[in-house]
Amino acid sequence: MARKKRNKVNPDAVVRQLMNIVGEREVLYLKEDLISYECDGYTMTKGMPKAVVFVKNTEHVSQVVRCLNRERIPYIARGAGTGLSGGATPLGGEVIISLVRMKRMLHLDLDNRKAVIEPGFVNLKLTQSISDKGYYYAPDPSSQYACTIGGNVAENSGGAHCLKYGVTTNHILGLEIVLPNGEVVEIGEDGIPDQPGYDLLGLLTGSEGTLGIVTKITVKVLKNPEGKKTVLAYYDDINDASQAVSEIIAAGIIPAALEMMDSIAIEGVESAAYPVGHPLDIAAFLLIEVDGIAAGIDDQIDEILTVCKHNNVREVKVAKDEAERGLWWANRKMGFGAMGAISPDYLVQDGVIPRTRLPEVLIRIAEISKKYDLRIANIFHAGDGNLHPLILFDARIPGESERAAKAGSECLKVCADVGGSITGEHGVGIEKSAEMRFIFSDEEMAAQTNIRAVFNPDDLLNPGKLFPQPGRCVEVKQG
Amino acid sequence: MARKKRNKVNPDAVVRQLMNIVGEREVLYLKEDLISYECDGYTMTKGMPKAVVFVKNTEHVSQVVRCLNRERIPYIARGAGTGLSGGATPLGGEVIISLVRMKRMLHLDLDNRKAVIEPGFVNLKLTQSISDKGYYYAPDPSSQYACTIGGNVAENSGGAHCLKYGVTTNHILGLEIVLPNGEVVEIGEDGIPDQPGYDLLGLLTGSEGTLGIVTKITVKVLKNPEGKKTVLAYYDDINDASQAVSEIIAAGIIPAALEMMDSIAIEGVESAAYPVGHPLDIAAFLLIEVDGIAAGIDDQIDEILTVCKHNNVREVKVAKDEAERGLWWANRKMGFGAMGAISPDYLVQDGVIPRTRLPEVLIRIAEISKKYDLRIANIFHAGDGNLHPLILFDARIPGESERAAKAGSECLKVCADVGGSITGEHGVGIEKSAEMRFIFSDEEMAAQTNIRAVFNPDDLLNPGKLFPQPGRCVEVKQG
Repeated sequence: MARKKRNKVNPDAVVRQLMNIVGEREVLYLKEDLISYECDGYTMTKGMPKAVVFVKNTEHVSQVVRCLNRERIPYIARGAGTGLSGGATPLGGEVIISLVRMKRMLHLDLDNRKAVIEPGFVNLKLTQSISDKGYYYAPDPSSQYACTIGGNVAENSGGAHCLKYGVTTNHILGLEIVLPNGEVVEIGEDGIPDQPGYDLLGLLTGSEGTLGIVTKITVKVLKNPEGKKTVLAYYDDINDASQAVSEIIAAGIIPAALEMMDSIAIEGVESAAYPVGHPLDIAAFLLIEVDGIAAGIDDQIDEILTVCKHNNVREVKVAKDEAERGLWWANRKMGFGAMGAISPDYLVQDGVIPRTRLPEVLIRIAEISKKYDLRIANIFHAGDGNLHPLILFDARIPGESERAAKAGSECLKVCADVGGSITGEHGVGIEKSAEMRFIFSDEEMAAQTNIRAVFNPDDLLNPGKLFPQPGRCVEVKQG
Repeated sequence: MARKKRNKVNPDAVVRQLMNIVGEREVLYLKEDLISYECDGYTMTKGMPKAVVFVKNTEHVSQVVRCLNRERIPYIARGAGTGLSGGATPLGGEVIISLVRMKRMLHLDLDNRKAVIEPGFVNLKLTQSISDKGYYYAPDPSSQYACTIGGNVAENSGGAHCLKYGVTTNHILGLEIVLPNGEVVEIGEDGIPDQPGYDLLGLLTGSEGTLGIVTKITVKVLKNPEGKKTVLAYYDDINDASQAVSEIIAAGIIPAALEMMDSIAIEGVESAAYPVGHPLDIAAFLLIEVDGIAAGIDDQIDEILTVCKHNNVREVKVAKDEAERGLWWANRKMGFGAMGAISPDYLVQDGVIPRTRLPEVLIRIAEISKKYDLRIANIFHAGDGNLHPLILFDARIPGESERAAKAGSECLKVCADVGGSITGEHGVGIEKSAEMRFIFSDEEMAAQTNIRAVFNPDDLLNPGKLFPQPGRCVEVKQG
């Protein structure tokens, strides 16, 4: 029956050209098929694409791009669509180039610790496919079971373990890119410490799909650490937890992860799929993981326990086995999703602050919560100052979505004001393009948009992302 | 007397304008004063600048740049002049903007592990000024006693310890830059894991002074490791040494440094200021340093000793104290300079190869040595595949400089052919601009020169560097 309906709308000339490149079945163009491509994981803004094209190889991407250039039709590369800032969300009328069928591992070279994969390769699958040989891929966004490494490159994704191991850009050795003129270029390769010429690898990584489309990725893989231990510490006062974070870092320990959750966030994760039994009356917990050479770990754990106790911890414990450690992490990684258990809707924010400013930032976020009459939970990659306020709201109540968006923007302003930034790991996308003005001057913005113009002179590749749109300001952003 | 001579030549209108900005005594313009600015540490190419201006602050730099733009006069930023690829060498007629008087530390924030310095701050002085508090700055080029951190940013300098700690770009948190239009912009700041917008910090770092002039630098400082141990291993066969390197890395150990020197290089360092008493009949030695949490170090040292022995080491030992360790490093760091003790002249090359290809690369370098009848020593940051062939020659013998340059270029071709690169840490500069063609296609080069055009549209800032000059090819490079 669905098939019958489909036959009623004929593909237009552009869609037919795309079908000639990738095959008839590999292009979606009916409205009913396009609805799930109206947005990515950031659902506050939506736009209807013109079509979705499933490419299978670099040549497909190059031909599709050349075709769309000729036709002056804008286009967007998309991975799994798990992004949290609308980087893959259409303004309306774009062709989406879906990279999910480019998901092969092309080459694995454990001697030189690298793998070459296509952009649609799922993050977690990489670690799974090499773990039996004792290796893993470090960047671990919470969406790692679904997100693609191509998307991770676009957003320069982080994860709970980026404190010690760095974000995606620290794990990319080379890229093959289709430029907006359809040319294919290779950048990087072989983990050369100081690549000659300009650092295009760094420039493309995190460019949010506005400079080119990644078609091949060479990533670093790491040897599994010899040992790993995890500490959970419950605090009655968030300032004590915060002070403990500073003291752990000051002691010269770089934990693999150093996470904090406040009481509302804990209420969420305890209502979700993996409850741990965290006390619901604490102000915050810290989840601290240390890894490395086995012999060094116990000393570090002892030091961490001492710091925690010294800072009035209510209770502190070390995971007794891998099962307990796994449960603690599953619970933590539910953090965002768990908000669904305690609120009809929620908006994830993503700011960065100097670690030492956390107590005052939390006070200001509490004020914002009060001002807009919305609960705000806080999940914090405390080690590197990456704060995720989660603004809880109910989209069915008129005006509440707008209030949530404004509260979110104000949280980012607070982060910028204390010398931080408006995104730690989720990117700017559509969501925060206006907030770029919180941290960049006109000259600084021009230096960036001029670079976009070099790669993407007609702005056909992912238009309207990353930079403020003329005539659009923060106040009317969600209006 | 010198003063009298000086009065004979009057400054021209441009020099007078520069004097008005920085003060009369802060501009050199007489030929006799300019001679030491004809080249940097790469002495094969020289050019006479028009003048040298000593700036004291960002405003000076901005005004000087605006003045030179108006007058259409090219200019070059220069630190200590220790660069090894001619990045600060004039083609002829440029104004050199010397940053050596901008050498203050502006801010030190050990709680957040960062320091803000001016570009003329000397590398080693940073570590010296914080070591009593238990901190250090990681990138350690061999010239660290003299080179400036501004120059390190321009060249993205490495050092013996970059295997574990990364090169300069991994230690820069923020930059203040004067763009070629005279505007001052701030990029980065606060060690945000994923800075919003494009990674300009990465783009500027290592851009060899072609995109802007750095006037302020925020660097990461690190806590001193709790412990440190150093191993010296002598080998009769360089293939055994090479295999040991691979096995150490494969064992999951990331040493702080993993250096190799061949027999000619050893002959050099044993003839120089800090002889250790290395046997002169070995094929190579490895110098391996492990640092970190004290408890983990002994295990790693045991494993390294086992790997060395398993690979037919002649003798292997652990430094018995800090004095012995210091001597081994002083000896190693003399590597380049020591060539002066065994040859009238030498040319340092700087290639990168996949670690596992070392044995065949050394065979091909030996063939190049034979072909050009010049001795070639090899110093190798073995851990990250950064090879420094040192071509020994005598510039007084007609044609020998040219032969050395050709031999150097062929060594780089070998590196590129095995999938490596033409520079690991010294940059491209004037020296290797033609060899960029060994590794970049026309499209890839265009992507880079287009970026230069965005920042530096009139090519007045450091012209003739980094990219091949039209009509100039490798063969005639030194002709």
